[in-house]
Amino acid sequence: MRVSQGLFRTWREAPTGAETRGITMLLRAGYVHKLGSGLYTNLPLMQRTQAKLEALIREELPRVAQEVSFPVLQPGALWQESGRWDGYTQPGGIMFSLRDRTGRALALGPTHEEVAVATVRELVRSRRDLPVSLFQIGRKFRDELRPRSGLLRTCEFTMKDGYSFHATPGELATHFEDMAGAYARILTRLGLQWRAVDADSGSIGGSASREFTVLSEVGEDEVLYTDDGLYAANAERAVSRAAEAPPSPFQGFARHHTPGTVTVASACAALGCEAAHMLKNVLYDAAFLTADGERRRVPVLVSLRGNHTVNPVKLWNAVQEREEGTLLSLEVAQTGQWAASPLPLGFLAPDLPDTVIARREGLQPAFLRLCDLAGADLRDFATGGNEPDIHVSGANWGADYALPEVADLRQAQPGEASVHDPRQPLRSARGIEVGHVFQLGTRYTAAMNATFVDTGVNTGVGADGAAHPLQMGCYGIGVSRLVQAVAEQLADDRGLSWPDVIAPYHVLLTVVDGGDAAQVDAAEALYRMLRAAGLDVLLDDRPERAGIKFADADLWGIPYRVTLGRALKEGQVEIRVRRSGEEHRLAPEEVPDWLAARLDWQRG
Amino acid sequence: MRVSQGLFRTWREAPTGAETRGITMLLRAGYVHKLGSGLYTNLPLMQRTQAKLEALIREELPRVAQEVSFPVLQPGALWQESGRWDGYTQPGGIMFSLRDRTGRALALGPTHEEVAVATVRELVRSRRDLPVSLFQIGRKFRDELRPRSGLLRTCEFTMKDGYSFHATPGELATHFEDMAGAYARILTRLGLQWRAVDADSGSIGGSASREFTVLSEVGEDEVLYTDDGLYAANAERAVSRAAEAPPSPFQGFARHHTPGTVTVASACAALGCEAAHMLKNVLYDAAFLTADGERRRVPVLVSLRGNHTVNPVKLWNAVQEREEGTLLSLEVAQTGQWAASPLPLGFLAPDLPDTVIARREGLQPAFLRLCDLAGADLRDFATGGNEPDIHVSGANWGADYALPEVADLRQAQPGEASVHDPRQPLRSARGIEVGHVFQLGTRYTAAMNATFVDTGVNTGVGADGAAHPLQMGCYGIGVSRLVQAVAEQLADDRGLSWPDVIAPYHVLLTVVDGGDAAQVDAAEALYRMLRAAGLDVLLDDRPERAGIKFADADLWGIPYRVTLGRALKEGQVEIRVRRSGEEHRLAPEEVPDWLAARLDWQRG
Repeated sequence: MRVSQGLFRTWREAPTGAETRGITMLLRAGYVHKLGSGLYTNLPLMQRTQAKLEALIREELPRVAQEVSFPVLQPGALWQESGRWDGYTQPGGIMFSLRDRTGRALALGPTHEEVAVATVRELVRSRRDLPVSLFQIGRKFRDELRPRSGLLRTCEFTMKDGYSFHATPGELATHFEDMAGAYARILTRLGLQWRAVDADSGSIGGSASREFTVLSEVGEDEVLYTDDGLYAANAERAVSRAAEAPPSPFQGFARHHTPGTVTVASACAALGCEAAHMLKNVLYDAAFLTADGERRRVPVLVSLRGNHTVNPVKLWNAVQEREEGTLLSLEVAQTGQWAASPLPLGFLAPDLPDTVIARREGLQPAFLRLCDLAGADLRDFATGGNEPDIHVSGANWGADYALPEVADLRQAQPGEASVHDPRQPLRSARGIEVGHVFQLGTRYTAAMNATFVDTGVNTGVGADGAAHPLQMGCYGIGVSRLVQAVAEQLADDRGLSWPDVIAPYHVLLTVVDGGDAAQVDAAEALYRMLRAAGLDVLLDDRPERAGIKFADADLWGIPYRVTLGRALKEGQVEIRVRRSGEEHRLAPEEVPDWLAARLDWQRG
Repeated sequence: MRVSQGLFRTWREAPTGAETRGITMLLRAGYVHKLGSGLYTNLPLMQRTQAKLEALIREELPRVAQEVSFPVLQPGALWQESGRWDGYTQPGGIMFSLRDRTGRALALGPTHEEVAVATVRELVRSRRDLPVSLFQIGRKFRDELRPRSGLLRTCEFTMKDGYSFHATPGELATHFEDMAGAYARILTRLGLQWRAVDADSGSIGGSASREFTVLSEVGEDEVLYTDDGLYAANAERAVSRAAEAPPSPFQGFARHHTPGTVTVASACAALGCEAAHMLKNVLYDAAFLTADGERRRVPVLVSLRGNHTVNPVKLWNAVQEREEGTLLSLEVAQTGQWAASPLPLGFLAPDLPDTVIARREGLQPAFLRLCDLAGADLRDFATGGNEPDIHVSGANWGADYALPEVADLRQAQPGEASVHDPRQPLRSARGIEVGHVFQLGTRYTAAMNATFVDTGVNTGVGADGAAHPLQMGCYGIGVSRLVQAVAEQLADDRGLSWPDVIAPYHVLLTVVDGGDAAQVDAAEALYRMLRAAGLDVLLDDRPERAGIKFADADLWGIPYRVTLGRALKEGQVEIRVRRSGEEHRLAPEEVPDWLAARLDWQRG
C-alpha cells in the first residue's frame, strides 16, 4: 500500500477526552475514529491489526474448536429459559433489548451462552457426538453506564467467544486447560506481560474460572500475586492468610459506655484495644427478584474483624448462593431502613435480634447472618452492644453469641501472606482483563434442557440410557480490548509500537526526499522486492517533509522502518527498529533477508 | 478435519417451513441452524463457505479500496442529519431502533451511508486526500415484515458494503465502473448465471444504480432483458416501447351514457373500442412527512393508456421528486376519500377539477397531475366524463384537456420491444438481487456537510478554494444472501453443489468400510498428502454404513469425493465429481496432482 493512495490521516495533538496513552495514540495515529460515546470505527490500520490478531487467535485455538457465527440478535425467550433475562434487562442492566414489529423481545447479545446451548441441544444426541467445541469472532454489546478509556469499555466491541460441551466434568476440565494453554500462547506471542489469575465467575456463573490480565496501570482490575508465580488472583476473588490477631487485652465479658464511637477507630480508642480485637457487624439490604417476578428484600448482617474490609463480590456471591431469586442489588443499610425502630448502627452485635425488622410485604422477617472466616477465629473480642453508645468486650462465639454461617467475605490485601505459602506475601498490580475462561458445568444446560444419552458401548456417565445435562465451558477474549491493551503496554511517548505478529504492516519504507529520483526509484524497487517476499509493506510516498514522515512512522508503530535517503549514494539504506531504536545500514538487496530473519511472524 | 471429531449433523427430511431448495439443503446438510424467525446461525460448514466467499470478494475489489469496520450501533442523530430517520423508523419502517440508558437514540444499521459520511467528513480536507474508498464486511439488520426464504430475507445478515468519495462526478463514475467490474468477476468466478441490470435506487437515493441479479426461479425480483445482451433492467425500472395504439375508431368529441362500466373492459365494450383507445385516470392518495414533522396529503391523478399498468416504483419516484417532504405512503384512493362529495371513480377525466377536494388541514388543495408517456401520445381517445355512467370519446390533448406533466409511469411487459432496438423483444426472468452499486452524488454529503477544498495546483472542481460537497458512491453485496443464491442455482435433488472457489472443503475422503485397515490406512495417508499439498480436506471416518456416507457427501456438496473402497485391492481409488457425476479411477498418489489440475482455486 502507498500512503498517498489511502486513508492515513494523523493528528499532532491528543484528542480531548482520551484518558489513556493507548487510546490517545490509536486516535492520533488514525487507527480508530470515535463515532459517538462508546462507539468506535476501525479505520484501515486498525482493521489490519485486528484481523492479524484474529488470525493469531484462530491459529492457536485447539484444533477441535470449530468456527461458527451466531446472530447478535437473540430471542429474549432464551434468556427467560436460562433465568438471566430479568437481571440483564432490569433498569441499570447492561443488556440492550428491543422488540421487533411483531412484538417479539430481542436482546443485543453481550454474550452467547443461551444461544450456544439452544443450538447445540438440537444437534447433539449421544455421547458419540461429544465433545463439541465452537467459537465465533463477532460483535458484542453492552449498555455501559459510563463508556470510557477508548476500546477498554465500549457499547460495542469485538470478542472471540467459545462454548464447549462434554459428557463429564473431567472432559470439560481437560478442554478448559487446553483453552487456557491457547490463551497463554497468544499473549506470550504478543510479547506481553500478563498474568493468568483465579477470578470471580460473576453473572456468567459456574464453578471455576480463570482470567487473563495484561498488566497496565490503566487497567480497572487489581491482581494479587506472589513472586514465586504459584498464586495470582483478581482482587475480587483473591484469598490470603489474615495476620493473626494479637492476644486480646480483654478477659471476661463486660459492657462499656462508649458514647459517640460509631467507627472502629473511635471504639478501639475508647476500649483501649486494636481494630484486630474487634468484631464489626455491618448491615446490608439485599433486593431479589423472585421467579414469580416479585421483589423481595432480605436484611443481611455481616460480621468480620475490625481491621478487615468486606469484599463486595465475595459477599454478593455468598448472598446469592443462599437465597432464592436473582440478586438485584446489595447495599449497606441506612438507619431506620425497614426497621421497626431506629437501629443502633455503629453499635450492632452479631445477635441483633430478628424482631427489629418491621413486618412488611416483600421483606424477609429474619436476618441472613454471615461471618467472615477470620472473624470466626476471634477470641475474647470486643463488639457492639446492640444499644446506642454501648460496646462489649471479652466476648466469645458459642458462649456469648451463636456463630453465624461462616464464609470467606474479606478483601485480601497486598502484603498479607498467601494461603499456599505463608512466606510469600501478596503483591498488587493493575491490569486489563483480556480473556476469561469458565467451567460452567450444568448451569445453563440443566436450565435449558440440553442433554445427551449414551447409546454406545461406553460405561461412563450417560451409559444408563437416561438423558444427562451437558457439561459446558465458555471461553472469551476481548479482541478489540486486547488490541488496546497491547497499545497501553507497548506504546511510548512517540506513538504505538506493535509486536511483529499483529503489526498492520511489517515494514514502512520512507522516502526522505520525494524530489530525488534515485530515492524514489530505489523505494519502488524495494517495495516490489519486499512484497514479492510476502511481507506487508507500506510505502510513504507523500510529498511531505522528512520530519513529518518520521514522526508519523513513530506514531504508526510499524516494527521496522527502512529509510531511503542520502546513504543511497553509498549504496545503503537505513533500517530502524521502532521498539529498541537500534539502527542498521545495509544494501537494499540485503533488506528482505534481514527482515525475514528478524520477523516473529515466520516463527508462528 | 475429521467428520468424527466435528459438528457435522445432517437431516434426511426437509425441515418444515423451508420454502426453497437452497435453504432446505442448507438446513438438511447442517450448514445453518434457525435460531428464530429471520435469525440463522452459521454452523461450521457455512462459516467456512462464507469465509471463502469473503476472501474472494476482498481479492476482487479494486486495490484502492481499504477495509474498515463501522459500529453496527449508529447514533440516530446522523440519520436526522441525512433526513432518513423518520422514514426508516416510522411504524412499519425497516430499521430497528432503541435508546441507551442515557436516552440516546440508536439505530441498528440496515446500511451505513450516514456513518461513512460522518467518518470521512472528519478525515478528508483537500482534493489531495481523494479519492477515498472504504468497505467493510459485517452484520446488517432489518425489522422485516415477513422474514422468509431462509437467508434471502432475514432480520440479520452479512453484507459487504463499500463507500467511496470523489472530487468530481467523472471520478465517481470511473470508480463505480471499477466496482461493477469487480462484482462481475466475483459472480463469474462463482460460475453463476447472472445479469447486471439497471435498477431503481429506492430509499438509498442517487442518480445511477446497477443491480447484480443471480437468476433463480425463487428470486423476488423480475428482470427484463433482451437476447442481444444490450439491455437488462429490474422490472421495477424497466422501460420499453409501447406497442402503437391502433387507429382510433372515434372522430370528434362526443359524450356517451355508459351505465355501470367502471372497468376499462366494460367501458370498451360499451363504446366499441379497444383498451388501447382509452385513457384511464387513476386517483392516488400520497402521504408525506414534512421537514417540520407534520403529515401532509397530496391527491395524485395519474393518466395512462387503458391497456397499460402503473408501475408503483416509477410512480413513487415521480411523486417524491415533485413534492417536498418524505413520501410515506402512496395508495389508490377510495370513493369519498378527502373529497367534498363522492367521486365518480371509474368515470374520471384527466381534468377532474381541484374543487372536488375538500379543504382540510394537511391536505393539498390541488391535484398533482401526471400522465404516462404513452398516454400523452394518444389521439382521439375515449376517457371518463367526470360524472357517474358517462364516458367521452374522440378527445385530444390540448383541444379538450390540458396535458399534465408527462413521465414514464408504465410497467414494461415481457414481449414489448426494447427502447434500444425495436426488433429486440423483452424477455423476463426471475432472480435474486445479490449486489447493488450506486452513484449517490451529493445526496448525503450535501445534507451532512461533507466537503473538500482544493488547496493544491489542480484547476478542476474545488480549485477555487471554496468547500464543495464530496461525490459519493456506495456498493453492496449481500454476502449471506449470495451463498444461498449459489445454493439455489447449483443445488440438485441430492443436495448442495459448491463451486470450487467457495466450497468448505475441496475434497471429501470417504472410507467405505471403517473396519478394513487397508482402507483406513490409505485414507489417512491420502489425508496427509492432500493437506500437505495445501488442499482443504474432510475425512469421513465415521463408523457408518457406506450408503449413509455417500448420501451425506452428496448433501454437503463438496466438489470432489475420493472413495477408498474395494478398488484399493487393485491399487486404485475412485474420484467422483459432485456436479457432473463423472468418475475416474487412479492410484492414490496421483490424486493430489489430478485435483490440483482441476481446482479452480489455483486459477484465482
